[in-house]
Amino acid sequence: MTDLPLADTAVSRTIRSTIERVLTKVNALSLGGPGWTRPSYSDLESQAHAVIEAEARALGLEVSRDHAGNLFARLAGRNPALPPLFCGSHLDTVSEGGAYDGQAGVAAALALVAALREARVTPEADFVLTVTRAEESVWFPVSYIGSRAALGRLLPEELQARRADTGRTLADHMRAQGFDPDALMRAGPPAPARFLEFHIEQGPVLDRAGEPYGIVSAIRGGLRYRAAQVQGAWAHSGGAPREGRADAVVAFADLVMAMDRAWEGFLARGSDLTVTFGRVDAASSAHAMAKVPGQLGFCLDLRSEDVAVLEAADLALRDEIRRIERARPGIRFDLGNQSRSQPARLSPAMIDWVAGGAARRGDRPRRMLSGGGHDAAAFAAAGWESVMVFIRNWNGSHCPDEGMDPADLARAVEAVLAALSGNDG
Amino acid sequence: MTDLPLADTAVSRTIRSTIERVLTKVNALSLGGPGWTRPSYSDLESQAHAVIEAEARALGLEVSRDHAGNLFARLAGRNPALPPLFCGSHLDTVSEGGAYDGQAGVAAALALVAALREARVTPEADFVLTVTRAEESVWFPVSYIGSRAALGRLLPEELQARRADTGRTLADHMRAQGFDPDALMRAGPPAPARFLEFHIEQGPVLDRAGEPYGIVSAIRGGLRYRAAQVQGAWAHSGGAPREGRADAVVAFADLVMAMDRAWEGFLARGSDLTVTFGRVDAASSAHAMAKVPGQLGFCLDLRSEDVAVLEAADLALRDEIRRIERARPGIRFDLGNQSRSQPARLSPAMIDWVAGGAARRGDRPRRMLSGGGHDAAAFAAAGWESVMVFIRNWNGSHCPDEGMDPADLARAVEAVLAALSGNDG
Repeated sequence: MTDLPLADTAVSRTIRSTIERVLTKVNALSLGGPGWTRPSYSDLESQAHAVIEAEARALGLEVSRDHAGNLFARLAGRNPALPPLFCGSHLDTVSEGGAYDGQAGVAAALALVAALREARVTPEADFVLTVTRAEESVWFPVSYIGSRAALGRLLPEELQARRADTGRTLADHMRAQGFDPDALMRAGPPAPARFLEFHIEQGPVLDRAGEPYGIVSAIRGGLRYRAAQVQGAWAHSGGAPREGRADAVVAFADLVMAMDRAWEGFLARGSDLTVTFGRVDAASSAHAMAKVPGQLGFCLDLRSEDVAVLEAADLALRDEIRRIERARPGIRFDLGNQSRSQPARLSPAMIDWVAGGAARRGDRPRRMLSGGGHDAAAFAAAGWESVMVFIRNWNGSHCPDEGMDPADLARAVEAVLAALSGNDG
Repeated sequence: MTDLPLADTAVSRTIRSTIERVLTKVNALSLGGPGWTRPSYSDLESQAHAVIEAEARALGLEVSRDHAGNLFARLAGRNPALPPLFCGSHLDTVSEGGAYDGQAGVAAALALVAALREARVTPEADFVLTVTRAEESVWFPVSYIGSRAALGRLLPEELQARRADTGRTLADHMRAQGFDPDALMRAGPPAPARFLEFHIEQGPVLDRAGEPYGIVSAIRGGLRYRAAQVQGAWAHSGGAPREGRADAVVAFADLVMAMDRAWEGFLARGSDLTVTFGRVDAASSAHAMAKVPGQLGFCLDLRSEDVAVLEAADLALRDEIRRIERARPGIRFDLGNQSRSQPARLSPAMIDWVAGGAARRGDRPRRMLSGGGHDAAAFAAAGWESVMVFIRNWNGSHCPDEGMDPADLARAVEAVLAALSGNDG
């Protein structure tokens, strides 16, 4: 098959208009501002899935859902013996999140189908538009719920995890949205295929370099404490001498600074790591200006492309806690439950395949690391050939100001369209 | 007048039973546990005042209230030309506070009157049981509201301060409890007299020394930032490199550790100081495990017996903030409004007078500093001869476990009763 006529403005216009329309329709669905809030397994997430289902049906795709509510819309390829190419992302958001995380990847997948239709191209393998559920782990303390469910890798006990805002279990929320966690647990894994995900970078690398998109070679894994605590001793702020205080805020500050120094050390030794204390709560009704704080809650997120570095950072954390507890009598840390997501190496063959499409467009996207976890990590962990395309973004991510130029996304979609038009697509 | 018969068990029993009864009745009034919660200018505070009014009337005292709702119950002395001795404390609590802060001082004052009645002793000067309103500054950002109102020193703009939980103004809350802030503003200051306050120590000094009570020679003043903020930049926890982060939690931890070191330095130079970050809030709906925190709220309480030390600590705070803002681009601190209470030197004559009563009982209470602010500081600032008697306590203060032995309080009451029985009483 020869190269697609990429100068064809009808195809380019289709890509751009599809992206714009999907983003507009999906982002009309939110609990309210600032930013966008569509909790995992909420009515709003289901409504967003329905938007994509209607778009997929309009393009003549064959639509199905699995027992966890993941949406699949299939465009048949020319060779049914080839493993299909699944392409998509998720539509849930963090609380007060941005306009592009997840939804841009779904828009790109739909734009690819629309472009193939517009160009009257049938890809070699089946192309399966994929919309997962519940990718944002702020709602349930479980990583990649929807994609791991699709892959037959969600554990029965994970169905009992409770949503942070409602306190209800994942199984309850699945049922409330019309899905069947019991059937899900009985279903076997699908045959491994291929997975492609477009996503904003969620970091400053492409923006600082002035590059519209890049290809992801690995995804950092995470080691997390979502409900850690420091216990100290309540006392009067003016009456308790410095000696003998067990101040939970000071003990926590000690840990934060120690872990920041430890992080600097890991980076200096060439290890990949991020350290984030994203949430700190010493603001209960028991806390007051005139009281030495006797308690503080926090969460800690460690990420690395290397499991050994995560283990070493966790050991450093425990060493620092022991040091602080020894130095500050009356202080006790309780890290609570640990949760993890595994780092993922993406497929060299698929990286080269996307790079080939980009080259046909005259682009040379860099290979880069993903700091955020993504559904592609779950597919890679299940043995699928997986790849991600990162889109330049700015103003942070997981926040209302999260920025992206849809033209950058369209350019990346055209690169993959060129790859799909090759003999290996 | 000769010494009272302190071996008289009827007087001792009266003191103990009055203390127990007042504490039991007042502590039956609370918004619910853990601990005790009676907000300033709440219905519960008014009900607690009504308990004391009934007790005072039962003892035949002449009861009045001022326009701010402070309660005064007068036992006429033998010499109306002498300045009266006002004696009491407050009945509001912090949120989830203890069983003794404030209420023990009111119970002691009532026990003194009951003991004088039981012993058929008329003091030299009028004795005025005093129950102030709104001493705990966690509710309104104003120090010593009731006592300063009684002294004609509350400012019109302070009536516009809003209660932390309701958002309504102090003037509104006064009116809702049946008092008259407009008339209060028109009233002049009373003639300076004398003030005595019993209070738990709110610190470990007496407990560690094994001493039941002490006499306070000075009260620390405070310099406070109740609504300070750190602004940073929201980002993705896994996507944002360490370089370029503006992490509000790390910047705050830097400040906490710096101020803790600065505090150590002040103490090493012999300066009196406490430093407390009592409340920290990075737990809004925008905060999440997977986000670099872009914002954090906190409050800071500095206390010292020496205004110059408070000023120096405030300068150290501002120096550290400048250093942190320079070292961490994107970080901005906003300290918000500052509030202050002045340190107070208590009356050497009244200290000696209480010590004289204690000596007659065979006690030698230490002279000590008060870390907490108290109504006595407001009376001292208004030019009243003032003194405090501290009662040993444990398990902290301003917290549900706050401990005190009523027998220690009774012993201190007997010491003051002995002082009242002297020629200078």
